[in-house]
Amino acid sequence: MIFDRKQIVRRYGKNPIITTADLPCRSNSVFNSGCIKRDGRYVMMLRIEDVDGAQHFRMAYSCDGIAFDVCGHPVIIPDSEDMERFELLRYDPRITPLDGAFYVTYAAHGAKGVRICLVQTDDFEKFRRIGYISEPDNRNGVLFPEKIQGRYVRLDRPTMAHGQGGKGDMWLSYSPDLIHWGDHKLVAETRPERWDGHKLGAGPAPIKTPEGWLLLYHGVYERCNGLIYRCGVMLLDLEKPEKVLARSHGYILGPQEPYERIGDVPNVVFVTGNVLEDDGTVKLYYGAADTVMCLAFARLTDLIDAAWNR
Amino acid sequence: MIFDRKQIVRRYGKNPIITTADLPCRSNSVFNSGCIKRDGRYVMMLRIEDVDGAQHFRMAYSCDGIAFDVCGHPVIIPDSEDMERFELLRYDPRITPLDGAFYVTYAAHGAKGVRICLVQTDDFEKFRRIGYISEPDNRNGVLFPEKIQGRYVRLDRPTMAHGQGGKGDMWLSYSPDLIHWGDHKLVAETRPERWDGHKLGAGPAPIKTPEGWLLLYHGVYERCNGLIYRCGVMLLDLEKPEKVLARSHGYILGPQEPYERIGDVPNVVFVTGNVLEDDGTVKLYYGAADTVMCLAFARLTDLIDAAWNR
Repeated sequence: MIFDRKQIVRRYGKNPIITTADLPCRSNSVFNSGCIKRDGRYVMMLRIEDVDGAQHFRMAYSCDGIAFDVCGHPVIIPDSEDMERFELLRYDPRITPLDGAFYVTYAAHGAKGVRICLVQTDDFEKFRRIGYISEPDNRNGVLFPEKIQGRYVRLDRPTMAHGQGGKGDMWLSYSPDLIHWGDHKLVAETRPERWDGHKLGAGPAPIKTPEGWLLLYHGVYERCNGLIYRCGVMLLDLEKPEKVLARSHGYILGPQEPYERIGDVPNVVFVTGNVLEDDGTVKLYYGAADTVMCLAFARLTDLIDAAWNR
Repeated sequence: MIFDRKQIVRRYGKNPIITTADLPCRSNSVFNSGCIKRDGRYVMMLRIEDVDGAQHFRMAYSCDGIAFDVCGHPVIIPDSEDMERFELLRYDPRITPLDGAFYVTYAAHGAKGVRICLVQTDDFEKFRRIGYISEPDNRNGVLFPEKIQGRYVRLDRPTMAHGQGGKGDMWLSYSPDLIHWGDHKLVAETRPERWDGHKLGAGPAPIKTPEGWLLLYHGVYERCNGLIYRCGVMLLDLEKPEKVLARSHGYILGPQEPYERIGDVPNVVFVTGNVLEDDGTVKLYYGAADTVMCLAFARLTDLIDAAWNR
């Protein structure tokens, strides 16, 4: 039960910040886009759904984190060996700065299921495909921004198949080289009859804090007329990140405004970008109703408190 | 279509070779058991279902590959960190001799799905747990008996979740150390409206031949009253084992005899052991109807021909 109902997250008053009207291409929707800040500039990788149902990524840049200029050309990622089987669609990019470069994880969906694809870039112009780093079905993958105990680490959400209704928990894997992954750990489970009772998975790359890795995550609640996607927060152990130190009882951001309630997929708040500012504010970038991109603010200390439920 | 109807596989006339009557414990069934030959002795790891529905492994040994002596005690595998979530059941062990030791892959099934577990032994008395080498849901894992191009290799069958009815193809992964796995490859797909149209996965460890890795595999056919499990054969490239060089159009062994038709799971032939003899004969060990263990014979050359459909 949520005893403390203070407002942890504050929406930007002029949401949404990016809609199809801001795009240079004819599109259906723009949502669930990764975002980081680099050298004072906000870098967003847009997920755009075209009017034919195909999807593409496109970069957008901003000086204030609010007004974004969208690139005139799509992101070009080299093809894999078999796009029809493995990558008819790509979606939900998360950006992680790591080892002086940028790594993007996204869901690659083809006839043979959905997997996590990892690509690397130095400049968001040229992308190098590292490869699919999971087997099917798995998505919502994101890398930690640094090696932990000498290994790369990722979060992801493998999907249960066997009569479990597509439920899914959040897992974690380690890698010596970004190609071979193992030592898989169950990090956080769905909580029956709670707001994250159906499935849950990582949001954007975790933020390092003295109290642990702060992770925004999505939790899914199943109601008779569909799913509700909300955002919660947890803290993971700095040295052993599969260990959850704290997890918010309640969600901290859920569908409420018309742009979150109404759209191609009603009732979705899906955070895929976060930027920690020098003043201790966190900008949360999120897709709303699988239709538009929105922005919200929180203080880092409030997010940490929310994870601890204090 | 199957043009050549010659008998490739010959059943042992006194099948089944092991039933619950041969066990020193009160049991429901014994089936899908791994088998290899070592220093002239046949070594079988039995999958036994107890009368309470629990399952355990138990060793059995034989001098002729037909009459097996069953051990008085179960195999003891050290517990993982959370048996309820990860390993309420273990089943379908495959044994692979590798690097002078023996590796057993089996399906570990708990509240959080099913994964492939890898354990190692030198003597089939003491087992060392290497760990779960896949995320959920995945099973039918088996290691190749040697490194290929410097890496360990496994076959497996991740299960599709998203409205695809639990269908599954056979995949392959590489590892530098048996712990971290990657470079996942789709090896063989289900063939719609054929005997392996619903799912397929590896049988026992591949046999190295001059024409490629000979792999016995199970294919599953979905009929209105249930699934039918049969055995087919393929050849995989020696250096690049994700490449299928040849694959039998038809199955080479399917449910036909009463002990294959009738049992806890009717209509199942499931090969989990194979032994290549010096005279070029291959012994196929298989579970029948998820109830008993059986034996069949084939000539290696006939299996290779069957893979090539010649």
